[in-house]
Amino acid sequence: MTDRIEADYLIETAEDPARAAEVMAGEQSSGTFVSVPGEDNEGVRLARAVVERLEIVGDAERPSSPGATPGRPVLARATLSWPLSNLGPSLPNLLATVAGNLFELRAFSGLKLLDLRLPRAFGDANPGPAFGVDGTRRLTGVTEGPLVGTIIKPSVGLSPEETADLVRTLAEAGIDFIKDDELQADGPHCPFEDRVRAVQRVIRDHADRTGKRVMFAFNLTGEVDEMRRRHDLVEAEGGTLVMASMHSVGLTGMLALRRHARLPIHAHRNGWGMFGRHPNHGVSYVAWSKLWRLAGADHLHVNGIANKFCESDESSVASARSLLTPLWPDLPMLAMPVFSSGQTIRQAGPTWEALGSDDLIHAAGGGILAHPKGPRAGVESFREAWAAAKAGEPVEARATRSSVLADALGAYK
Amino acid sequence: MTDRIEADYLIETAEDPARAAEVMAGEQSSGTFVSVPGEDNEGVRLARAVVERLEIVGDAERPSSPGATPGRPVLARATLSWPLSNLGPSLPNLLATVAGNLFELRAFSGLKLLDLRLPRAFGDANPGPAFGVDGTRRLTGVTEGPLVGTIIKPSVGLSPEETADLVRTLAEAGIDFIKDDELQADGPHCPFEDRVRAVQRVIRDHADRTGKRVMFAFNLTGEVDEMRRRHDLVEAEGGTLVMASMHSVGLTGMLALRRHARLPIHAHRNGWGMFGRHPNHGVSYVAWSKLWRLAGADHLHVNGIANKFCESDESSVASARSLLTPLWPDLPMLAMPVFSSGQTIRQAGPTWEALGSDDLIHAAGGGILAHPKGPRAGVESFREAWAAAKAGEPVEARATRSSVLADALGAYK
Repeated sequence: MTDRIEADYLIETAEDPARAAEVMAGEQSSGTFVSVPGEDNEGVRLARAVVERLEIVGDAERPSSPGATPGRPVLARATLSWPLSNLGPSLPNLLATVAGNLFELRAFSGLKLLDLRLPRAFGDANPGPAFGVDGTRRLTGVTEGPLVGTIIKPSVGLSPEETADLVRTLAEAGIDFIKDDELQADGPHCPFEDRVRAVQRVIRDHADRTGKRVMFAFNLTGEVDEMRRRHDLVEAEGGTLVMASMHSVGLTGMLALRRHARLPIHAHRNGWGMFGRHPNHGVSYVAWSKLWRLAGADHLHVNGIANKFCESDESSVASARSLLTPLWPDLPMLAMPVFSSGQTIRQAGPTWEALGSDDLIHAAGGGILAHPKGPRAGVESFREAWAAAKAGEPVEARATRSSVLADALGAYK
Repeated sequence: MTDRIEADYLIETAEDPARAAEVMAGEQSSGTFVSVPGEDNEGVRLARAVVERLEIVGDAERPSSPGATPGRPVLARATLSWPLSNLGPSLPNLLATVAGNLFELRAFSGLKLLDLRLPRAFGDANPGPAFGVDGTRRLTGVTEGPLVGTIIKPSVGLSPEETADLVRTLAEAGIDFIKDDELQADGPHCPFEDRVRAVQRVIRDHADRTGKRVMFAFNLTGEVDEMRRRHDLVEAEGGTLVMASMHSVGLTGMLALRRHARLPIHAHRNGWGMFGRHPNHGVSYVAWSKLWRLAGADHLHVNGIANKFCESDESSVASARSLLTPLWPDLPMLAMPVFSSGQTIRQAGPTWEALGSDDLIHAAGGGILAHPKGPRAGVESFREAWAAAKAGEPVEARATRSSVLADALGAYK
């Protein structure tokens, strides 16, 4: 157990990497560009960040960003540490320390935060997910296999009643999970309150008739008071989940929601490409998602295998694995990975193989709704594909005795 | 007056740029990768984003990020618009629409949000800065010229009493403005409450003796309840400003602070390099700062001319100009630009020439504290340099009759 915060970075620098790492340590703790009185102070000396490790890992072909010290850069992995006493176990302040001004330093033409290791005090001071995998399974009654889910599409433009009609179709199709698109929040064409009431009427009716309660992620992204009010409405209407766009609400907004919430929180990472797409710039999701787990996210998006975006499978899988890895042995704070984006039955097998777990939400839009035999067959084909994956059976083999799977294989090439 | 949201982007694509812009419009409004029932719906049709303008502006030498459709990309400027009715005038939800999933689209090897034009409804629904330039001048009594300021350095490691001692020195030197470093918030070595009490005791004493009240930006970054409590303490102790790290608190956190605050808010942009450093990726500060002005930031950092980071002067100046340009003619919501980072008396003239305004905070660390005749001469030399700039007089000419300026010119090359 340590009382130091550790962060791993990939740095791209044309300067001496050891010197560049020291500049970074100075900038992010007690440095300035000319010496000033007080730098020989004992408290200041103890506050200084330390370069714990540095390893050159290769050459960069060219600078990723302009403005840096000229020259052909090398790539190095650097680990820095800070005493917890600089900031205490505060997530918003941690961000300024580990991902603050360092992206602008001239020493670097590229810099990416790769991972974080935090003192246990962060676990005591921050709420973490209240539900996670187990709570989500309990609320949905899905005791094994992934939650099969979908997203309301078209993303925007449907009225509350039209949304509820689609939810009826999906509920009757046997779906476990449905989410608002991140673009749908509280616009005048589909106000949040009307949508919740219309959708929950359908979900309650379906639960009364069948015993199965569909989990719907209502996007309550907004100001703090709005989010609290909306959360309470969802709860009053018998809903079991709320959703917030993490980059819109910020760590402070997410913490405020979590401190109030009695329902799990589905964290949407729209805008993520800006943070994490570039291999040598920004923040890896492995590091980033730890902050949001600590802040209270129960579900976190990880893209999906063979997704329609530009993220590699390797990156999506590393993200999902990280969410299912404990933050501390006695305080795991696991979050449920949400696989989505261009997902069809063809991704069930590879996802299982890569992750070795089905503690996840597998969300498909057209991959379910556009099944040639309709949404019920779409949902059923997903469950069949996952059953095959877990049994180690090729999906084509299982399709010989599952017509919904055979139809899906024909429809989704 | 329009009820559509407009956003300008720089796109880097190896696909047909017109098609790529349409993909973006679809993704950010009502698209999915296979057609689904409901897409012929009238509401959905009206919700669709429109590509208003597209202009090819050049070639990119190579893709800025991996994972995109292969080929040599062109650069184009694209303007998209959305009906306000998709989301309403909500800042957190605006972010998901104009800066959401589009950074990950395969069509683009680079994408940067350059500017935003918002319906007036955003001005009604959001608080904007409560103080801005005029309120800041009123609270400090600085009726002309920039506020001459500095940052507590070393950034972390000083105790509350040591911080207050430095504030005493600076107040006696005649400074207008002092800020916490963004790394200093509420760590156990320098707790927020103790720091506020110690510093404000010095500031009140100084004001009682001289009539001059130094404005101190106390970094209250934290959870919502913490920020509210800290704000109230600063107010009770006679403080006139609070500071928050914008990327740490998020738009939702900033709005929560602003809705509560009776003091102006100094918004710190640490981490900005991740968002805006790359010319073809992320968000320009011109676009970004509009969101934070609407959320209530009174002061916004813009780096400085010849700064120690890698931002160009052109970019810093464009940011500052934007902050001093009205959002709407009848609702300007101006924020005060904060110039900082490696600033000395040598940047006064170029800053005045570039901006044509002194409605700004000019903050220097070593540039004031390391003046060879001490901090009082440091502050005085800044005022002299600005007086010369406004009079159109070369700083060297003025130095012939100002010894503090002559000393500064000798010290800061």
